[in-house]
Amino acid sequence: MRLGILGGGQLARMLALSAHPLGISVACLDPAPAACAAPVTNYLQGAYDDPSGLAELAGRTDVVTYEFENVPAESVRVLSEHGPIHPGPGALATAQDRLFEKQLFRKLGIPTPGFAAVGNPADLQRAVSELGLPAILKTRRLGYDGKGQKLLRVPGDLDQAWEALGAVPCILEAFVPFERELSVIAVRAPNGNRAFYPLSENTHREGILRLALSRPGDPQQETAETLVGRLVDDLDYVGVIALELFQTSEGLLANEFAPRVHNSGHWTIEGAETSQFENHVRAVMGLPLGSTAAVGHAAMVNFIGAMPEPAAILTLPDTHLHAYDKAPRAGRKVGHASVRTLDGAQLDALVQPLQRLANEVADG
Amino acid sequence: MRLGILGGGQLARMLALSAHPLGISVACLDPAPAACAAPVTNYLQGAYDDPSGLAELAGRTDVVTYEFENVPAESVRVLSEHGPIHPGPGALATAQDRLFEKQLFRKLGIPTPGFAAVGNPADLQRAVSELGLPAILKTRRLGYDGKGQKLLRVPGDLDQAWEALGAVPCILEAFVPFERELSVIAVRAPNGNRAFYPLSENTHREGILRLALSRPGDPQQETAETLVGRLVDDLDYVGVIALELFQTSEGLLANEFAPRVHNSGHWTIEGAETSQFENHVRAVMGLPLGSTAAVGHAAMVNFIGAMPEPAAILTLPDTHLHAYDKAPRAGRKVGHASVRTLDGAQLDALVQPLQRLANEVADG
Repeated sequence: MRLGILGGGQLARMLALSAHPLGISVACLDPAPAACAAPVTNYLQGAYDDPSGLAELAGRTDVVTYEFENVPAESVRVLSEHGPIHPGPGALATAQDRLFEKQLFRKLGIPTPGFAAVGNPADLQRAVSELGLPAILKTRRLGYDGKGQKLLRVPGDLDQAWEALGAVPCILEAFVPFERELSVIAVRAPNGNRAFYPLSENTHREGILRLALSRPGDPQQETAETLVGRLVDDLDYVGVIALELFQTSEGLLANEFAPRVHNSGHWTIEGAETSQFENHVRAVMGLPLGSTAAVGHAAMVNFIGAMPEPAAILTLPDTHLHAYDKAPRAGRKVGHASVRTLDGAQLDALVQPLQRLANEVADG
Repeated sequence: MRLGILGGGQLARMLALSAHPLGISVACLDPAPAACAAPVTNYLQGAYDDPSGLAELAGRTDVVTYEFENVPAESVRVLSEHGPIHPGPGALATAQDRLFEKQLFRKLGIPTPGFAAVGNPADLQRAVSELGLPAILKTRRLGYDGKGQKLLRVPGDLDQAWEALGAVPCILEAFVPFERELSVIAVRAPNGNRAFYPLSENTHREGILRLALSRPGDPQQETAETLVGRLVDDLDYVGVIALELFQTSEGLLANEFAPRVHNSGHWTIEGAETSQFENHVRAVMGLPLGSTAAVGHAAMVNFIGAMPEPAAILTLPDTHLHAYDKAPRAGRKVGHASVRTLDGAQLDALVQPLQRLANEVADG
């Protein structure tokens, strides 16, 4: 069996590393001359909207998936003429537009922060009157890692934010004081079978995930599974999905979903019976899903901007390195390390030296 | 950092899969046009004794290792002129000759079955008088998976066995009734640091490993570590080594060692904190060794000749598939699956359906 991936970054790399043991070969399409998935895939260099590159990817593979949600919709349409692409165009179109996403959450009874569509400065004024300040103005499309959004604190911020984001269609979201940021990662098979990973508790800085912790038995687990379960069933979803949630005094509120493997699930490589990467491959290839049960308690620390010395990471107990083979660059995710321990009481102490290493090399 | 591997089979493939997350790129040299490590390595097709292929491998890498012990000694010499090769030439030369191997065991006080060198039919007669029958006649060089050996039951077997093995230098070994076949896998770093995996209990059929079980706390663990510890220290060994042992009424007797990652250690991918593959890479690259502690109880079943349907394997609980991407062929190792469970009492029941699948496709 042969899997094609749009995108050749670290998610494609880790998908490929988990596909090979299943006997599945992997081809990638990416515009970069040597993206980090290249050493472990049959690598095609080409633009995501290049018809010949897409045709070649489809021709070399049985099923296509993608590692990021900003794939051109037209590319997905072209690929779907050649064969199956998972997750499907409906999930992708929804995930590509923050307004569609929030509207779907509302339709499915998945609570969200208050939101309003913003198509022009007058809309923005109205939305602020309705939702109050502070609030967050986000472009409907093409945002990630904190990009494409502005915090509005006072009425004077509105015009500048609208212009700074490019005067494009936006969504205004109420600012929600949260107790925790959580994500639930689920996987759904073509036959409707579903499985849910233990929740991740996430810490961001400058809009970029820094730390994900997973302790089995989180009191919000059941609620989170119910919410993401509605989403995947409605979308007739195939593959891994990540639903980001705020835990607030009003309960869980959905922030956004990613129709792919997710940074907050990297700990599953060691901390779950089957990793999110393997389960995504299993799902899209029509193979039986693997168990999502926890193997101990786990945490993941991102390396942003540059990697610490590998030897310094590898001396830390219960710690597993995942370098992405990427050149250092400010704000870039260049690797991560996971801690996995059967003794949950040890988790915090094990993570601390890893965070110190990450902070020493991180920009900002 | 860049690692070169002589050989592009499943051991090279699994070494590469564990090297990439450490940020280490891998190049392989193998005579096959598309060996199974090719999709995950920078692959060079060439004979093991081709000077230009060896020079290219060395030129592309910082350290070279090998995935099998029958590498031409001259190739190792050529490579060692370019840079480090681990394990070193001394370990390799010893492992390549069953007589040298047994003599080293004897020198180090590592008990072995009785043995005698056999250079001609008269030697063989003398050796049989000394060691008795049954006994096993083995070629000193180039044997593996039960190849290059003959069981001698009665005096009339001697001449035929000598001829069948090609009238080449041999070793006669006393036939040892054993209670269990065990192996201990150890790893040693350039600075002399050592670590030992929990013992594997191995079952062979037709000379090929079928099942390896690892239950932490084996009563023979300490003795086995002492024996393999003597071996690696004497050889100033760098990398993973496997020492195969017979458990007999006289205690542990050493059968042979492999200067590489070993089939009986494949369960370490899931069943140990750090796999044998990652630890071999760490050792030869001069990185700190990882913990060899068990993660639960584990077992591995080989797929010989052909693979079962992946979906049939992937429905089994606690089971992990490792396909090698090799064409089916009688007697060929084409994949394995591991079972890992935190509940040791479940191990046998979990392994049984996997063994049934393996037996259904296995030849013989």
